[in-house]
Amino acid sequence: MDDSDGGAAMSRIGARSEGRLDTREELVRIGTEIWSEQGFCSTGIEHVLRRAGVPKGSFYHYFASKDEFGLAVVDNYARLWELKLTRIFGNAQVPPLDRVRNYLAEGIRGMEKHEFRRGCLVGNLAQELAALSAPFRERISHVFASWEGHLTRCLTEAQRTGSLRSDADAAELARFFWTGWEGAILMAKLDRSTVPLEQFRDVLFRWVLRP
Amino acid sequence: MDDSDGGAAMSRIGARSEGRLDTREELVRIGTEIWSEQGFCSTGIEHVLRRAGVPKGSFYHYFASKDEFGLAVVDNYARLWELKLTRIFGNAQVPPLDRVRNYLAEGIRGMEKHEFRRGCLVGNLAQELAALSAPFRERISHVFASWEGHLTRCLTEAQRTGSLRSDADAAELARFFWTGWEGAILMAKLDRSTVPLEQFRDVLFRWVLRP
Repeated sequence: MDDSDGGAAMSRIGARSEGRLDTREELVRIGTEIWSEQGFCSTGIEHVLRRAGVPKGSFYHYFASKDEFGLAVVDNYARLWELKLTRIFGNAQVPPLDRVRNYLAEGIRGMEKHEFRRGCLVGNLAQELAALSAPFRERISHVFASWEGHLTRCLTEAQRTGSLRSDADAAELARFFWTGWEGAILMAKLDRSTVPLEQFRDVLFRWVLRP
Repeated sequence: MDDSDGGAAMSRIGARSEGRLDTREELVRIGTEIWSEQGFCSTGIEHVLRRAGVPKGSFYHYFASKDEFGLAVVDNYARLWELKLTRIFGNAQVPPLDRVRNYLAEGIRGMEKHEFRRGCLVGNLAQELAALSAPFRERISHVFASWEGHLTRCLTEAQRTGSLRSDADAAELARFFWTGWEGAILMAKLDRSTVPLEQFRDVLFRWVLRP
């Protein structure tokens, strides 16, 4: 998934729940930004601290380790996307397959906005799994399972209203969607272009997500 | 793409061309193995040298830098896959779409054989692009373009023989294939299961790669 408005949404969450963006939240926000762009293992805590203007001692006041921090970042990313997917895939004002189109359009805009540097944080981390501690796998799997659930409900609605083939398993299509979209984000970063995203969308709607 | 038989194929190449596996080739072989499994940035040269039983001084006899070594590893991976894709997608004894099935079957077996640790080396590196030097982007793009070419030729043959819809652009389908397959490998590593690979294959053949 792309990170089209993660930062802005999180700033709002922080502002709302605590009246100000405290240091812990600021660190998590910056970690979310950084690890949407680059590898977890290759990025030292120092890099995060420099960007946050926070001394090292302060970091360890909030987090026992880089891993604990990384897991907080994953949890934050998961929370942001819960909001986003609920807003888009659960929008009863819009026909179900148009919600999928809207999601892709937002994703494409987000990739462009961040000049193809920012990809999917959980996709990035999944690529690094071999080097990550065990709890990461569980959390990342959980995030993808949740995304699958959101899309499956939306596609089931599309089947009920006749806009999507009824001879398909909605959950299987949802997994196919996320699998392909993760690959398309990877290719868009590589090509620095929206073309891989648009081509994925076009083939998907022409032959897979249709009545 | 998965790394189902890269090591074995390369040992043969080394044995054939030089009469023995020399140190440079052994380093490249080990680098190919390691970076099919884990991040380039997070893996020090020391790790490669330890596995190869080669002293550091000897490494710099063959490569000026880690980057130069990394690019040699990408070139080696590219060469191995040229052989593999020519063998599978260019096999005139097999109907074109069955070649695609054969490729996927080999990939699924390879992922199982390496217990879902080993993914696609160029996919892994593409995920890390933000942290890699410029020549990596060019080489990796070149590898994907070559894979697209192999598959496009095979799919064009399928269209000519009537086993694939003629209302599709073969190159667009080829890009869709590689995009989805890269995503499926990512999910298979995450789930430690062949299910994401099999589901990608099934949806692809049920609705996309058909007459």
